[in-house]
Parts: sequence; structure tokens; C-alpha cells
Amino acid sequence: MLSESLDRTELESLGEFGLIEHLTKNIELHQKSSIKGVGDDAAVVDAGDHYKLVSTDMLMEGIHFDLSYVPLKHLGYKAVTVNLSDIYAMNGKPEQITVSVAVSNRFSVEALDEFYEGVYLACEAYQVDLVGGDTSASITGMCISVTAIGTVGKEDVVYRSGAQENDLICVSGDLGAAYAGLQLLEREKKIFQEDSNVQPDLEGKDYVLERQLKPEARKIVIDLLKEKKVRPTSMIDVSDGLASELLHISRQSDCGTAVYEEKLPIDAATLNALEELGLDSTIAAINGGEDYELLFTVPQKDFEAVRSIEGISIIGHITPKTSGNNLVGLGDSLIELKAQGWNAFKG
Amino acid sequence: MLSESLDRTELESLGEFGLIEHLTKNIELHQKSSIKGVGDDAAVVDAGDHYKLVSTDMLMEGIHFDLSYVPLKHLGYKAVTVNLSDIYAMNGKPEQITVSVAVSNRFSVEALDEFYEGVYLACEAYQVDLVGGDTSASITGMCISVTAIGTVGKEDVVYRSGAQENDLICVSGDLGAAYAGLQLLEREKKIFQEDSNVQPDLEGKDYVLERQLKPEARKIVIDLLKEKKVRPTSMIDVSDGLASELLHISRQSDCGTAVYEEKLPIDAATLNALEELGLDSTIAAINGGEDYELLFTVPQKDFEAVRSIEGISIIGHITPKTSGNNLVGLGDSLIELKAQGWNAFKG
Repeated sequence: MLSESLDRTELESLGEFGLIEHLTKNIELHQKSSIKGVGDDAAVVDAGDHYKLVSTDMLMEGIHFDLSYVPLKHLGYKAVTVNLSDIYAMNGKPEQITVSVAVSNRFSVEALDEFYEGVYLACEAYQVDLVGGDTSASITGMCISVTAIGTVGKEDVVYRSGAQENDLICVSGDLGAAYAGLQLLEREKKIFQEDSNVQPDLEGKDYVLERQLKPEARKIVIDLLKEKKVRPTSMIDVSDGLASELLHISRQSDCGTAVYEEKLPIDAATLNALEELGLDSTIAAINGGEDYELLFTVPQKDFEAVRSIEGISIIGHITPKTSGNNLVGLGDSLIELKAQGWNAFKG
Repeated sequence: MLSESLDRTELESLGEFGLIEHLTKNIELHQKSSIKGVGDDAAVVDAGDHYKLVSTDMLMEGIHFDLSYVPLKHLGYKAVTVNLSDIYAMNGKPEQITVSVAVSNRFSVEALDEFYEGVYLACEAYQVDLVGGDTSASITGMCISVTAIGTVGKEDVVYRSGAQENDLICVSGDLGAAYAGLQLLEREKKIFQEDSNVQPDLEGKDYVLERQLKPEARKIVIDLLKEKKVRPTSMIDVSDGLASELLHISRQSDCGTAVYEEKLPIDAATLNALEELGLDSTIAAINGGEDYELLFTVPQKDFEAVRSIEGISIIGHITPKTSGNNLVGLGDSLIELKAQGWNAFKG
């Protein structure tokens, strides 16, 4: 049946974002409660005196995770936190999640228990409730789908689209560590496959490994911004990589972006791991992805307030649209930012 | 890693509902907005002056659908309607959905377009909005996860747990057709596999095939009950089969159920198809599943009101818990109802 069609366009030719755009370009919204549909970190639904936020993610074995080195408990934890991250990225507060899992019958109840242990650990840590889901068989790999539901005040919601010229571009925490962790795990897996007597050499790599295997969502950033009375003009979480997220803000806010290479926050442990791996730290910070930090813009007037928050870096500013999206290197060299975000459909 | 564990309990030993119970038995709810968690057709979330309803389902290729005979457009339609059915089963009104899909790169953009055509058709038919989702690669089969979000008045929400002794047990539409449709499709697939020159013999089978391939959600029933000012005391949608759903109501309402074999609504086309297949119509009606009709209970006082609604059958009544769950056959024979709902984890 799939081969009947005469015209065939390969999925990889559109890329993930192109495909989503293609599939959703003709959407018409019927319900007045649908405030914001596809195209931000979460959908926004009217709930009378506040908004509900809804975000969903699907994680596929062999695409998003590799059970040969990802412990199931960490996987459960991560599946939840990456969705909570999307709710925080709207300046909201996650309150409920649903978790659906499909596994083959090679899984035991005990293995599934480990996964749910991670899910419940995340629920406890972020005070969210598991309120539903689905458990199914899979004829092949494991498949996970998590939906997070949150609340946000109508005046407080932050979209990707509100950045204004001259706004400061800020990012929480540091970048590139999750990518370094992934590369390390992949290297050790390869070595192990070649010679199973070799023990993994992951000593002193705790930080980058934890960033990859057990990422946190940046609730603290939302809390601190509120405390300092700073309301970001735009916000997004860093899941696909800084460059990719800057391009989202640029497109939806109809502006350009300039970030400074020397301002990119990279942890010493990350630099160390990347050096050992022979990888470039700027590329890792910009295109690595899975950092789950918050990238946001604030008006210039909030400079002092933002600078006073520990763990926030001001890395650039919003420029006119005509300037494009650029990384300003040492010696003021300009490198155009491109989303190198990995194309999951590639061969 | 999966083999490290010394104790190993097979998933199939618990069954789907046993597994869900096992995995969710220790849930603690942290948020006061979490009104009802796992254990009904949808979760109930406080939204100030009303409730939001959230329901989610995962559909796996090779388990829930077979692409060798299920057209992608129908699959998209069905993936949506089965979730809307869960919102109606809470006496609610669905307003938004999210749809996540993972496919291998053997899928073309055109194939995915067909799937989404079905999704949008359902959105149009039920006036719900696609507000989010995820599109991902899969190394193996197709995987679909849909979440539906709806609203319901705080006084209007109907749970599985409210049935009272002597309440009438009612069901909309007719039963067993979707099961008959599935058996027909499976038969034709087998014949085709044995000899690909044989053309499928599905003439006159439109009704049962449509019930399997393109089920509708029973919005009309909710509307008519409201019009007649009938508020069910309990409600559930028939997805796993009448017997399985009656047992849910029985357990959660702490009561027994008695339904009459002669009252089971079975369409003539279904009887016809089942006869041709050599299958028992009572078993199909009771254990078939995928009818997506609404099963509900009402107080005796609503007898006339319910009887006046076309397409509603009164099939039995709620009994004391000690009476158990029984099918009353011709000649008043009693057959104990058991959930024959298929165990997806069975080897």
C-alpha cells in the first residue's frame, strides 16, 4: 500500500522542523479555548482565570536512547524532566503528567518497575502527579510518550515570539555537557563491542554523564526570575542545541540574534571531556543539544537583575532581522548560526 | 542489563490491568489541582470554575493495527476518535488533542500526509484542535500517541464509581461489529497471504468493516442525555469489551452487575458476518471490544427518559456486590462475566 503512491518525497528531505511545518500548515483552530497551538514549547489552553499548558514528547529506543548504556531508572527520570522543561520554558508550573510505555515481552515486570522508579523520583522532585497513561506491548523496541500539563497566569505566559531588538539573550547553567556525555558513552560502547574485557573508562566524568543520563528541568530559574520580578520577553528550552533554539526565537520574534563565543558558558569538566574526545567545545555548546537549560531574552533594563542571579549568563543580544543569526567569535569574526540539529530520519 | 536481575516476573503474568495497578499502586498526589488520577477513562484536573479532562492512548503497529489492511487515513481518524471517546465517557467535551507519531524512513511524506488527513478529518468532525505533538523516527514499526484534552462542568463529571444498586445499565449503539470486522480482515489477509491472486471478498460487509476501521466517538449520546436532563451515575466507553467494562464499573462502584443476553444490541449485519465466520454473537458482543459505544448507568427514575432516546439499549441493572457480575441467558441461566480482554503481552 505504501508503494502505491507515484510521488514519493523522502522524510529526511524536509527535516524534523520542515516536516512538522508541512504537516501542520493548514491547521484551523475551532475552539476559542485553544490560545496557542503547534509551534512553541507547549500548547496554551484557556482555563478561565488562567492558562493550562500542554507539552508532549515521544522517545523511541534506538533513536532517542540506547538501552545498552542507559539505565531504565534514569530513562524514566529523563522522560519526565524533558517534558517539564517545556512547561518551564513557557514560564509555567507543571502539575500533572501522563506516561505511556510500550515494551516487548522480553521486558520483565522488574525492568518496568525500574523505569517507573525513575518516573516517580522525578514526580517527587518536581512535585508533579502521574495522573494517567497507557501500558502496551511492542513487537520491537521500547517506546515512551510523556505529556506534561501545567498552569501559568495569563499575564505571565512567555512565548518564543516576544523578543525585541536590543533585548539581552540569556541562558541558564552551562552548555555542551550532555553532548560530551553522549559521545563518551558512545565511545565506551564501541570499545566494549570490540573487546568485552575492556572495562569502561568513565572516571572523573560524572558531571557530563549525569547531564546526559539524568538531566534536570530548570524550575529554579523560573522561580528566581519571578523573585527578581523579571519577565522574559521570549523563552525556549535548549533541547536541540543553542543554535537551533536561537533560530526558533529569531523566526518567531522576527528578529536577528548575536551571541558571543567567549560568553558561552561551558563547564571545566565539559571542556576536559571534549578535549579528551578531540571535539570542539564551541560546536558542542552551540549544536550539542539536550542541555535542557532555559534560553530567554530580557529587556536591557533588567541587566542588573539578571546579572545578580547566579547561574545565568548573558551571552548576546537581539539584533534587527536583517542582521541574521550570528556567533561573534574572538576578533569579532562572524559565523552564521545554522541548526545542525540532528535529522532523525536520515538513512 | 535486563538480564542482571535475579527475580524475573513476566509481564503477561499480571495482564494489562494488573500491570497498571502494580505500577501505579503507590502513587501519591502532590497537587491539589489533581482531582482524579489513574483509574478512569480520563484524568480530571481542576481549572477553577470547571475541570479539564486528559486522556491518552498509545497505538503500536503489529499490536493495535496492521498496516497491511488498515489505510493510513482511517488509522489517523481512529487514533483521534478513540481518545475523544474517553473524554465523552467522563460526560465531557473534547476540545484539544496532541498527536505524536514515530515512523521509519520507509514512510514517505505522502504516507504521513494520508495519516494526518485522517487526523484532521476527525478534528473537523468533532470540532477539536490539534495543538501539539511530536514527529520522530522509529527504527522499526509505526507508533502513535494521542492525548485528548476536554472540559466538563464540576457538577457534570461522571466517573466509573457512581453506580448504585438497582440503577439501569444502558449502552449506546450496538456491540460486536468492530470485532466481526477485525476477524473478517484477518481472514482475508490470511487468504491473500496464501494465494495473492484471490481478491478479498468483503462485499456487503461495509458496516462491520467501518466499525473496525473508522469508529466514531459517541458525542451524540452525551448531547442527548444532556437534552433529556439525564446524568448517568457511572459511565465508561466500550474499548476492551462489554464484560471488561462492566467489571470496571463493578469494582469501582463496589457493586454487582446483571445484563441480559436477549437485550444485547447486535446489528443484523454483525450477526450475518459472525455467522459466516462461525463465531458466537454473544461472545463477540461481550468480549469483542473496540465498539467505542458508551456504557452507563442511570437511576430507575430515568427509565422513560432513556427509553425515549433512539439508539440506547437498557441491557441490565446494578445488583448487590455479593451477586457478582453475570450474564443472564435465555431460561435465566447465569454466566459469570470475566474480562476476556486480550492480553497484549502474551508471547
